[in-house]
Amino acid sequence: MFNLGIPVSSEGGHVSFQNNIPDPVASEKELPSFKFELEKSEGRVIDGSYGKEATVLQLPVSKGIAGVSMRMQPGVMRELHWHATAAEWAYVTEGRVRTTAIDPAGCAETNDFEPGDIWYFPRGHGHVIQTLGDMPCHFVLVFDNGYFSEFGTFSITDFVGHAPKDLLAKNFGVSASIFDKFPRSEVYFAKGPIPPAVPPAPLQGWRPPPLTHKHSLLSQKPLEVFDGGKEWRVDGSQFAISTTMTGVVLEMDVGALRELHWHPNAAEWQYVLAGEFQVSMFGSGGRWRQETLRPGDVGYIPQGFGHSIENVGGTTARILIVFNSGHYQTIDLSQWIAGNSLDVLATNFGQDPKVFETFPRRDVFMTK
Amino acid sequence: MFNLGIPVSSEGGHVSFQNNIPDPVASEKELPSFKFELEKSEGRVIDGSYGKEATVLQLPVSKGIAGVSMRMQPGVMRELHWHATAAEWAYVTEGRVRTTAIDPAGCAETNDFEPGDIWYFPRGHGHVIQTLGDMPCHFVLVFDNGYFSEFGTFSITDFVGHAPKDLLAKNFGVSASIFDKFPRSEVYFAKGPIPPAVPPAPLQGWRPPPLTHKHSLLSQKPLEVFDGGKEWRVDGSQFAISTTMTGVVLEMDVGALRELHWHPNAAEWQYVLAGEFQVSMFGSGGRWRQETLRPGDVGYIPQGFGHSIENVGGTTARILIVFNSGHYQTIDLSQWIAGNSLDVLATNFGQDPKVFETFPRRDVFMTK
Amino acid sequence: MFNLGIPVSSEGGHVSFQNNIPDPVASEKELPSFKFELEKSEGRVIDGSYGKEATVLQLPVSKGIAGVSMRMQPGVMRELHWHATAAEWAYVTEGRVRTTAIDPAGCAETNDFEPGDIWYFPRGHGHVIQTLGDMPCHFVLVFDNGYFSEFGTFSITDFVGHAPKDLLAKNFGVSASIFDKFPRSEVYFAKGPIPPAVPPAPLQGWRPPPLTHKHSLLSQKPLEVFDGGKEWRVDGSQFAISTTMTGVVLEMDVGALRELHWHPNAAEWQYVLAGEFQVSMFGSGGRWRQETLRPGDVGYIPQGFGHSIENVGGTTARILIVFNSGHYQTIDLSQWIAGNSLDVLATNFGQDPKVFETFPRRDVFMTK
Repeated sequence: MFNLGIPVSSEGGHVSFQNNIPDPVASEKELPSFKFELEKSEGRVIDGSYGKEATVLQLPVSKGIAGVSMRMQPGVMRELHWHATAAEWAYVTEGRVRTTAIDPAGCAETNDFEPGDIWYFPRGHGHVIQTLGDMPCHFVLVFDNGYFSEFGTFSITDFVGHAPKDLLAKNFGVSASIFDKFPRSEVYFAKGPIPPAVPPAPLQGWRPPPLTHKHSLLSQKPLEVFDGGKEWRVDGSQFAISTTMTGVVLEMDVGALRELHWHPNAAEWQYVLAGEFQVSMFGSGGRWRQETLRPGDVGYIPQGFGHSIENVGGTTARILIVFNSGHYQTIDLSQWIAGNSLDVLATNFGQDPKVFETFPRRDVFMTK
Repeated sequence: MFNLGIPVSSEGGHVSFQNNIPDPVASEKELPSFKFELEKSEGRVIDGSYGKEATVLQLPVSKGIAGVSMRMQPGVMRELHWHATAAEWAYVTEGRVRTTAIDPAGCAETNDFEPGDIWYFPRGHGHVIQTLGDMPCHFVLVFDNGYFSEFGTFSITDFVGHAPKDLLAKNFGVSASIFDKFPRSEVYFAKGPIPPAVPPAPLQGWRPPPLTHKHSLLSQKPLEVFDGGKEWRVDGSQFAISTTMTGVVLEMDVGALRELHWHPNAAEWQYVLAGEFQVSMFGSGGRWRQETLRPGDVGYIPQGFGHSIENVGGTTARILIVFNSGHYQTIDLSQWIAGNSLDVLATNFGQDPKVFETFPRRDVFMTK
Repeated sequence: MFNLGIPVSSEGGHVSFQNNIPDPVASEKELPSFKFELEKSEGRVIDGSYGKEATVLQLPVSKGIAGVSMRMQPGVMRELHWHATAAEWAYVTEGRVRTTAIDPAGCAETNDFEPGDIWYFPRGHGHVIQTLGDMPCHFVLVFDNGYFSEFGTFSITDFVGHAPKDLLAKNFGVSASIFDKFPRSEVYFAKGPIPPAVPPAPLQGWRPPPLTHKHSLLSQKPLEVFDGGKEWRVDGSQFAISTTMTGVVLEMDVGALRELHWHPNAAEWQYVLAGEFQVSMFGSGGRWRQETLRPGDVGYIPQGFGHSIENVGGTTARILIVFNSGHYQTIDLSQWIAGNSLDVLATNFGQDPKVFETFPRRDVFMTK
């Protein structure tokens, strides 16, 4: 019903991502795959450091959110760059990382990160990411645009390397010959000495922005502890700069279930940190699909689609979940049922009202 | 990398729906039809209850707003469901109706409606609609997305009916066998006893939301009374939850005219409640089209297009008008002319300034 | 005019224009031309007055912003009209101009303009533009939608000329014969006596709106004076009605450079007022393009793309720059570098840290 025979295309919403025109991928009679084995993909590898992308090219259903898994060796930096088409949200899984970000007011902030920490860089703000210490680091980058891709990322060596030297000399008030030995094309991963333990001041001196780019998510007490697991969560209300994205880490016991639910205001991007999950997705029209996600696999749930997440492996499991809205919202099936009366439920399902007397009278969220 | 070989599509505006790229349907040399005989269409009929849709499939010009005419027999409910792609605004025309809606905070509200009452459910919020009493009811549903359609609507029996019973058992902490006799596919219209006169408490007890979903429009004094008719109107300033839609009922005497005007910030969706109207539409480039609308017919005016509405029948007439913005705005031709001086008007139309001395020096809005 | 041969359709952002889906024009391996010789184009000429358009039809990369160069003879008015698809921002370059604009509250404002003054009319608000005095006037109109075009502009003679006379007679409470001699099609440029020196009151009397449509940009002290030039700038923080656009005039000495930079939140539309500029654009992926712009030429930089502007002519030069956001934001390359430490820069570019000791420790913005 959604293939209207007219050529469609377009622009995005201002703050949150909202579909008004149906996505042809999600509108077929069969639900498309919503899983991509990100860590098994090849990606861009340079001397043992890599970036692996999950965009609409790899996972066509993921229109609203893209992701990158990045691993960097000691002394390596993902060079100064900006993203013209998306904000960047990140979660550190391994090692230690330093970032420096510039904003349009000229403020710059340098932060050091450990596993469980997150950062947020608004769309178009320049930044650099460095491995700290003598061990590799790994982090997951999440972008609020599934079309994030190479022509949307602008690296400083690519920029400077293509500008005429005379222009650069005038720009910086230095001799043109300085640029003779600069790289002429994109470096992407630059390698140098291991950064100093204490971040050196920038050329302009310290000039921090009003809102920090860093939030320590996992080092805080979980937002909630359930019979079956724990939830850490941060949206724009606790992490003010993160106006377009929300992040969650769920830790789930063996057999635990994040119950059937949907998010009325956002799409969901999933990355398995540990363990094995079965993710179920309901797409209306009798469409139901299940995928098994293992560490490094990515899942995607379009805005408003029903879904559940179950630990079907033999160990405690963890999943990273990111939404393309700075306001977290969920409606859980148990809560919806608890918000209706016995007579409504009885008629709706054609059952005796007594059937629903044993149903939960509250939100379940997670159970096992 | 960007030519993805798939017909791409898109995101909508954040609050109101605004076209930046021209709609091919509205950009032909001839204006397209902007009328659809909704009540004469077949729709989905089940045991005398029905839902009839006007979306871009039935009325291609109606990109910004869709509508449904729904009639339900006594004891019938439109089962628990949500719309992933649109908010829902509704006007009750006949009989009595009860709704229960859930929000992401877990608050639920139950309201009873009579003719002239309206409701608003934000995008993605679950709700149920029941006929009250022993007479049928009828209401008109209006959605802030012309692409609202079947794969955007998620019903609870469709959801629960496709989930594995083990998953449901774990989700609700009940025995899997409970679900043996549950429906396996979408019920859509469920039938049961006539609901009790006083709404029973939901399982979780009463827990009302901060903003009500109900507004009694027609039982209030008209916003304005004209020589020619009356206007009832409600936007987000009086009905706070209705952030994306505004509703109007116009009652017009025989021969009355809602003058030539346009809405700078919204598209307009029309549904004739009683009588016979001639709607004129001006689309720039010399494009002018008139349609005659009778009870149950739908009209659509794209954002910014000029139009007028005239009662051309032999009786007092009523039309329901809904806009896809929570802020009502109109610019009327008489007011525009009154906002300019005689010399401007004289030069603009190549007339003697005296010609305009007899023109209204105020907004006419409605006349006869 | 709307079937552009590229697959188009869809909705725009609410406040600023933001691409989430890549623009096929800007995503080819080679950057497209971003220059259009507007004043050399033919345009629509009537008795020595003209309007020349730069939209996606003339300059396909300019998705976010369109412009019109308009010159009017004494006694000529661009008749009452509105734009259904865009707000209008304007800069007067020559002569004197009067505008009258109506808003949805029925308030009307009449303003007189001289060179260096600007106006802003929100999307869909009706307005008229008159030449004042006995000399021609010229102004540059800028629209926050590159798809602004003829079917988006609604003129009052086109509107009234196609409405039946009986409808008009009822609308205004006058005799239908009054309209016998009215124009039957669009006048566009109307000609009459030179307007009176003091604006006459509108029919409804003076009723000014809460926010003025006028701002005198060039008559104010420059926002900043550099070694190399001056900058005048106005966004929504100083000109409150201009919520969707920002304007800048740069005056640059011979050889002056507006340094390499990008705008994270807006596309940029350029119009050369005087002199000769070389504009460089960096599009990531090794894509670099330079264009030479002379008086009356238009340039366009997509949101987030790197660029610089250099006076390469033999005289002081001036360029008008307009952004499709009411919030001005820039990140300059010198500031970005100054926001990082020597060790980061050394590793990034593979240079000795000493190389960067001579770089500016502040934002350069403009230099020569």
